[in-house]
Amino acid sequence: MKFVTAKKEAEIFVGLLDDDLQKILVLHQAEAARTGKKRFPASMLDCIAAGEEFINQVSQLLDWVQTQEGAAHFYLPIEEVTLLAPIPRPAKNIFCVGKNYAEHAIELGSAADIPEHVMVFTKAPTTVIGPNAVVLNHQHLTSQLDYEGELAVIIGKKGGAIKREEALDHVFGYTILNDVTARDLQSRHKQFFIGKSLDTTAPLGPWIVHKNMIDNPNDLNIETKINGEVRQSSNTKHFIFPVEEIISVLSAGMTLEPGDIIATGTPAGVGKGFKPPKFLQPGDKMEITIEKIGTLVNEIEN
Amino acid sequence: MKFVTAKKEAEIFVGLLDDDLQKILVLHQAEAARTGKKRFPASMLDCIAAGEEFINQVSQLLDWVQTQEGAAHFYLPIEEVTLLAPIPRPAKNIFCVGKNYAEHAIELGSAADIPEHVMVFTKAPTTVIGPNAVVLNHQHLTSQLDYEGELAVIIGKKGGAIKREEALDHVFGYTILNDVTARDLQSRHKQFFIGKSLDTTAPLGPWIVHKNMIDNPNDLNIETKINGEVRQSSNTKHFIFPVEEIISVLSAGMTLEPGDIIATGTPAGVGKGFKPPKFLQPGDKMEITIEKIGTLVNEIEN
Repeated sequence: MKFVTAKKEAEIFVGLLDDDLQKILVLHQAEAARTGKKRFPASMLDCIAAGEEFINQVSQLLDWVQTQEGAAHFYLPIEEVTLLAPIPRPAKNIFCVGKNYAEHAIELGSAADIPEHVMVFTKAPTTVIGPNAVVLNHQHLTSQLDYEGELAVIIGKKGGAIKREEALDHVFGYTILNDVTARDLQSRHKQFFIGKSLDTTAPLGPWIVHKNMIDNPNDLNIETKINGEVRQSSNTKHFIFPVEEIISVLSAGMTLEPGDIIATGTPAGVGKGFKPPKFLQPGDKMEITIEKIGTLVNEIEN
Repeated sequence: MKFVTAKKEAEIFVGLLDDDLQKILVLHQAEAARTGKKRFPASMLDCIAAGEEFINQVSQLLDWVQTQEGAAHFYLPIEEVTLLAPIPRPAKNIFCVGKNYAEHAIELGSAADIPEHVMVFTKAPTTVIGPNAVVLNHQHLTSQLDYEGELAVIIGKKGGAIKREEALDHVFGYTILNDVTARDLQSRHKQFFIGKSLDTTAPLGPWIVHKNMIDNPNDLNIETKINGEVRQSSNTKHFIFPVEEIISVLSAGMTLEPGDIIATGTPAGVGKGFKPPKFLQPGDKMEITIEKIGTLVNEIEN
């Protein structure tokens, strides 16, 4: 199952993307037709918080839709809606793991920068934008805007002190995050937060793939292209800290909650890693593809 | 005006603390009696988001209450309620300025650690607890739990690229934050987030003092006692970066929103600064007093 948050005219709704990626089932409408009740959660955060009950509800709904002769009218062609970030407004900052691929740690420094322990910083909720939305160039603040393609984990179940072997039970699904970074601000302000939290610097999406479709999040090809040129090409099997360990470390003393977003770090090939650096320029097109998820496309403000 | 979030039985409400600190005006009840309408914002975040209109509404309400002969029944004795954190659940992480007093930067390192630029990290919303609530000792995770008394600024008005001279117009008010920190985790994980975000490590309160009562947030005495012993004693005039500059730097590329919380850094005298260090122990009582605001008291889990 691939879940989207979409907008048509003034209405924002949660939808299920059909496997051909061409049409979206408007879940609350179809459910109202099925049950005669408007009891569907209003937002993606509410859907995720409803837990297994939500997934069961959607499964039953899909079974029902397939028996309906006139089912087509429960779907919208994807070109008729605007996809938003699947979680347009997170309820807290995005957790981001720093330097989780050894080659990336080295490209920004040396082998001495490969972390021994999970390193986490955050991005403010005001950074989030959806697929195809424009990333502000912030030219008055930074001359070193950079891309970072990352697998993002969406937490589905509340928990603290989560064991590694139970960590994936706490996952709702996976999506893509572009951890756009102002390198000059990142280094000037020491702690990463300011350089990571400029408005619009967290493109997220295009949808959340439910965990049932991804057996192992630690074995997914990941690729970033800038204006069609492949810059990052790796696989999440090169994580220093796999998803299970990140969840375990983060939750050791901090309760994780449904809808929490964890960006798992970026592989080698960021703009700053090239000699000379290849920082983002106005109008640049960024495309991040992760196996089994899809492609997240955004451009820099021109 | 001093605003509290308080709980009586199952109900959580916003109240106005009387100047004698002994009783609380239950704002939505008094307003309903005055106007016959239930149009009062439901939570402190909603009150703050309502902006000047909220302050005007409260002013009119106070004028009206003073004309009522039986006004006493709009008030609750403070001992009959439980004060919660004034913002029990922030809508994003708390922004925290690191090393904003030179003597504190030196006690944790040397003069070379005095920052040239504002340094910001965050604490997760799950860290927040109210006055007199217990801070978990997290003994299985840390042996270096430490206190940090800080002035916290509550943003009242949305804005980006806020100029220094307009910064205080964006403030709603001020309160106290104890930035409880696991020093060993803070250094082990490099970026501060993990060591700063253990559950219950952000005691906040006891109330928000509206900005009209504090002309200059950069000239307030601040003192922290542990079990009655004065550990931190300073004044916010020793800020390296005053409140106006913090707001200006944070908002340069990131939109600040009503209800955002900015902790402004802690003065010298934290546990780690002593030789040998004086880390927190189970049962320790922490009291942070800031001039014109009040005293925030919390104990460590025994």
